[in-house]
Amino acid sequence: MKKYAEMNAKELAAELEKVTADYEKIKEKGLNLNISRGKPGKEQLDLVSDIFDVLKSDSDFDDGGDVRNYGMLDGIPSAKKLFADILGTTEENVFIGGSASLTLMYDTISKAYTHGLKNSNVPWSKLDRVKWLCPVPGYDRHFGISQTFGMEMINVPMTPTGPDMDVVEELVKDPEVRGMWCVPKYSNPDGIIYSDETVKRIASMEVGANDFLLMWDNAYCVHEFDGPFVPFPDIISECAKAGNPDIVFEFASTSKITLPRAGVSVMASSKANIEYMKKLLNIQMISYDKVNMLRHARYLVDREHTLELMKKHAKILKPKFRSVLNALEKEIEPLGLATWQTPKGGYFVSVNTMPGTAKETWRLCKEAGVVLTNAGATFPYGKDPEDSNMRLAPSLPAPEVVKEAMEVYCTCLKLAALRKLTGALD
Amino acid sequence: MKKYAEMNAKELAAELEKVTADYEKIKEKGLNLNISRGKPGKEQLDLVSDIFDVLKSDSDFDDGGDVRNYGMLDGIPSAKKLFADILGTTEENVFIGGSASLTLMYDTISKAYTHGLKNSNVPWSKLDRVKWLCPVPGYDRHFGISQTFGMEMINVPMTPTGPDMDVVEELVKDPEVRGMWCVPKYSNPDGIIYSDETVKRIASMEVGANDFLLMWDNAYCVHEFDGPFVPFPDIISECAKAGNPDIVFEFASTSKITLPRAGVSVMASSKANIEYMKKLLNIQMISYDKVNMLRHARYLVDREHTLELMKKHAKILKPKFRSVLNALEKEIEPLGLATWQTPKGGYFVSVNTMPGTAKETWRLCKEAGVVLTNAGATFPYGKDPEDSNMRLAPSLPAPEVVKEAMEVYCTCLKLAALRKLTGALD
Repeated sequence: MKKYAEMNAKELAAELEKVTADYEKIKEKGLNLNISRGKPGKEQLDLVSDIFDVLKSDSDFDDGGDVRNYGMLDGIPSAKKLFADILGTTEENVFIGGSASLTLMYDTISKAYTHGLKNSNVPWSKLDRVKWLCPVPGYDRHFGISQTFGMEMINVPMTPTGPDMDVVEELVKDPEVRGMWCVPKYSNPDGIIYSDETVKRIASMEVGANDFLLMWDNAYCVHEFDGPFVPFPDIISECAKAGNPDIVFEFASTSKITLPRAGVSVMASSKANIEYMKKLLNIQMISYDKVNMLRHARYLVDREHTLELMKKHAKILKPKFRSVLNALEKEIEPLGLATWQTPKGGYFVSVNTMPGTAKETWRLCKEAGVVLTNAGATFPYGKDPEDSNMRLAPSLPAPEVVKEAMEVYCTCLKLAALRKLTGALD
Repeated sequence: MKKYAEMNAKELAAELEKVTADYEKIKEKGLNLNISRGKPGKEQLDLVSDIFDVLKSDSDFDDGGDVRNYGMLDGIPSAKKLFADILGTTEENVFIGGSASLTLMYDTISKAYTHGLKNSNVPWSKLDRVKWLCPVPGYDRHFGISQTFGMEMINVPMTPTGPDMDVVEELVKDPEVRGMWCVPKYSNPDGIIYSDETVKRIASMEVGANDFLLMWDNAYCVHEFDGPFVPFPDIISECAKAGNPDIVFEFASTSKITLPRAGVSVMASSKANIEYMKKLLNIQMISYDKVNMLRHARYLVDREHTLELMKKHAKILKPKFRSVLNALEKEIEPLGLATWQTPKGGYFVSVNTMPGTAKETWRLCKEAGVVLTNAGATFPYGKDPEDSNMRLAPSLPAPEVVKEAMEVYCTCLKLAALRKLTGALD
């Protein structure tokens, strides 16, 4: 099949007619499909329901104290051990949270504003301006936190090995640049793994701000859906080795290991940062849910045992992601209409459409009953300067639904491109 | 027995000699007792361990959606219903939190600083000064939140019917006074129930600040340990009726109904406030632990059923509180050495010693192996201007331990008073 870019006007007109007819036929089906959010499917939730059976009798609740009662601000010993093992760090570097790492991330930044970080001269609320680096495309909820605090977000291009470090190293010299979002493994949405070299360059950045805050959201650290576990460097010790021990806070959770709303989260940083944050956190809480921590420590045991569980998740997820990639490879690749990474883990496929057609593709899909993540959502302020990036999230629906949604998506992608190429969108 | 204040110098010297000997004998025992924090005892925890049996199979997790997955920011329907029933408000007024109401309180104030409240002109971080009313004695963790944000705390005296409202009504006219802490039922530490008149006067205060924040910590709303449930007015509708719908945020939790670190918390306010806060909270979280919410909704059912459970707690707690009160009534009352309320609920007994002797009493207890809440902790900045108030928390230890600790406490109270009266403390 000829690429659209190589078609002449007549060929384009014929293709437009054909694809429009396909689209009208799809619309008649009255579909109602959703591939917009990275939610696990019911089969994945049921996979771990036996987690609620691990604590049974009154004698089950001891772990450095009665976990049902107050105390142990930074979490119970067995949960610290588990998460230190998963992240490849040590127990004194971790703080165990509630069901959402997002809350720990928000709290860290919120405290930078209200109290300042360990190395801050003043709380950020007293600063004229806080600039922040956002590798793009990225995670909308990260950008949402930056936006709610009024940060000036700066786009940094992603490459297949992580953020463009030449750009980053230049930008962080500015002392008004106070931090950066990173999803180092299976980045949201590209599914890119930062190379070891990128990680080392990030850890050893020469930052202008003495309270620079590297937000290292290791959300998908053990989340392979295709192929073996890919080891990752421990950012905490990398930063320490590079003489930047306090610049990084790492985050992870069991949201996509056990259950999204009944899991456990973790924050890791230098011992000094954890001690500093504990003093601030002690004012707002006595500890997170320690019964749930113990339930998770008993259930997941250690990294190796957790990886066994992740293989079961992979078995469920892989066919859904294959449906997405198969459709793109079969329908879109020959037309040269879009590019994408081929992730082997994480929760998304990120598609870069022909510039200026992402919003139109989204609109067409919606009209045909297929809900996608908003076009633009993967950029700060929801503004994709190229109107090109789209995030597909196939984890929730059944494989056959993903397949059906992708038929719609590919048709809409073609139709939007044809409209653009024939001038109908201008 | 003669009151100390009525003894002459010779009588005081003889009594000092006798009590000193008693104290030395106690010290020889090498005790290690703790009545410092309002923690439930193991017997209370075991009482509710069957809560972990209520969710069993994969089909148990539905409540307006699969509670294991993302979504439902403000909580699940059945938990909203339960807490609305307990608080006497409606479901649209409540937001369900995680295991700690303290975190919801902190978040509310933190957001006043970073974003402002619904009716704020500017975030409080931009204000020169935030003044705050603190009925004293009060809860140290409340004052800790005020202190960490740099508020200027103003002491307001407590009366047997709640805060001295003549004082409060005068102070709140100042537009720099932006809020007030209240524990309306079984106040911490006095165990006082605000009278209906006090509640009505609070609800209808003419406040100078248009973003005044009444922090209504209804921590002990169903926590009778002696006698029948005492109904309480619904502060949300009281404020609405008085034309102050947005001044109040109410808080409660199951920390002392089910389990301190695996419970569910709730925040209630005007519908408009809840909507406003949801927009801000949506940035930091997707929802709190909904599995635990469902577990609680199924286990506690409604207010009536919850009160049945509270009677079982009362049965465990009453003897411990009786031990405290018996000791005070027998050993201290005849000497006219201290005053206290006789609470019928809550978690504390608050003792007002002879002025200038609370710290010395605390020190003597510690030296004899009995840990009490720090003297001064019940006041802002940890500073009791009279050095008089002490909080006793007998819930955790066994009744015989409470009895033993109270023997020590009464002896130390006498010794400190005698030292004061004989000039040894000056």
